[in-house]
Amino acid sequence: MVDAKSKVSKATIRRIPLYYRAAQQMQQQGIRRVRSDKLAEMIHIPSATIRRDFSSFGELGKSGYGYSVATLVAEFGKLLEVQSSEDMVLIGVGGLGAALVENNFRRNPDLNIVIAFDQDPAKVDTIVAGVPVYDFAEFNERLPHGVQTAIVAVPSAAQPQVIPILEDAGINAILTFAPQPVACKPTTTIRYIDLTSELQSLLFVAHQKHKG
Amino acid sequence: MVDAKSKVSKATIRRIPLYYRAAQQMQQQGIRRVRSDKLAEMIHIPSATIRRDFSSFGELGKSGYGYSVATLVAEFGKLLEVQSSEDMVLIGVGGLGAALVENNFRRNPDLNIVIAFDQDPAKVDTIVAGVPVYDFAEFNERLPHGVQTAIVAVPSAAQPQVIPILEDAGINAILTFAPQPVACKPTTTIRYIDLTSELQSLLFVAHQKHKG
Repeated sequence: MVDAKSKVSKATIRRIPLYYRAAQQMQQQGIRRVRSDKLAEMIHIPSATIRRDFSSFGELGKSGYGYSVATLVAEFGKLLEVQSSEDMVLIGVGGLGAALVENNFRRNPDLNIVIAFDQDPAKVDTIVAGVPVYDFAEFNERLPHGVQTAIVAVPSAAQPQVIPILEDAGINAILTFAPQPVACKPTTTIRYIDLTSELQSLLFVAHQKHKG
Repeated sequence: MVDAKSKVSKATIRRIPLYYRAAQQMQQQGIRRVRSDKLAEMIHIPSATIRRDFSSFGELGKSGYGYSVATLVAEFGKLLEVQSSEDMVLIGVGGLGAALVENNFRRNPDLNIVIAFDQDPAKVDTIVAGVPVYDFAEFNERLPHGVQTAIVAVPSAAQPQVIPILEDAGINAILTFAPQPVACKPTTTIRYIDLTSELQSLLFVAHQKHKG
């Protein structure tokens, strides 16, 4: 595998998350090999572009025989690894928030929650797993310079009030566990993790399977 | 919206999770309307089948003008809601596991973690948020009759040992937070939640956006 980030075009690099998510989905569906024409249908990128992109990464496989889905997942996963250290802020230090701080994305040492906020007086000015917790009312003053990424683990009902405050302070990347979509600035990138939906969809598939 | 589960074909019902996930992805990408031919390309289902499926659900919209992505997400989300009560088991009562028990999917009162397992003597025979925690060595004896769904929140390294024990005891639906794919029986449905990957992919997109 080449060091893709330094040698391939920006346009190709922009397509990596698309390729990665498609490969992950195929893997979850039990698909082991995929040809560029099938992948093209799936992600709306011409198959010639896919083949050219993939060939620029070296040993991803031969396109005629199909690409190994496991290889795509592994290699694109590596490419997506954050190359520079990323300091992040956590909003909401309930059970889930505290668990996220404790774990602190330890699979990737470059991803670090460095500061947390809550509005519960019992949590404000404490330290959780080495991370200081401040009053969310002081978000603007306390946010460390240069931090642009927030993990949001507040109750769903609180989210619409929280997001604009983050954006106004300069946050432009948000991972949230509150599944209701909220209005964001166009410059903000937001991703929702909806555990209840994931579970319901899993159960639906499992139940169908066992009905035969 | 009709009560789809009683009136539409089994084949149509099997396609609901596919439709739901595609609609969620479009929503995350900011797509507001989708036509059946575009959706057909995306999920490999003929557009005529999609139109027929969607018309069997009543008021999803007119296919010529396109379907509202928000409506699709809302209506398919409702259809996927578990219709009967689903008792589940949790494996691993660390920070994340404890947070999952505390929350216990409260958005859907039919989804309940009823029992948990750990191998840490400090946790065994305690009660966390009303849920009893037992020794994982006693999994077979303690698993309540009829429970077929497990949430797995163990360290990644432990997962390959855990999954076969679950399967042998009759578990056939698994939601796991350990991202390394494991070998499963064909009768097992497994879904991986990979928070580090989600975060990396979010950051990748956000960084690209701000590089212009």
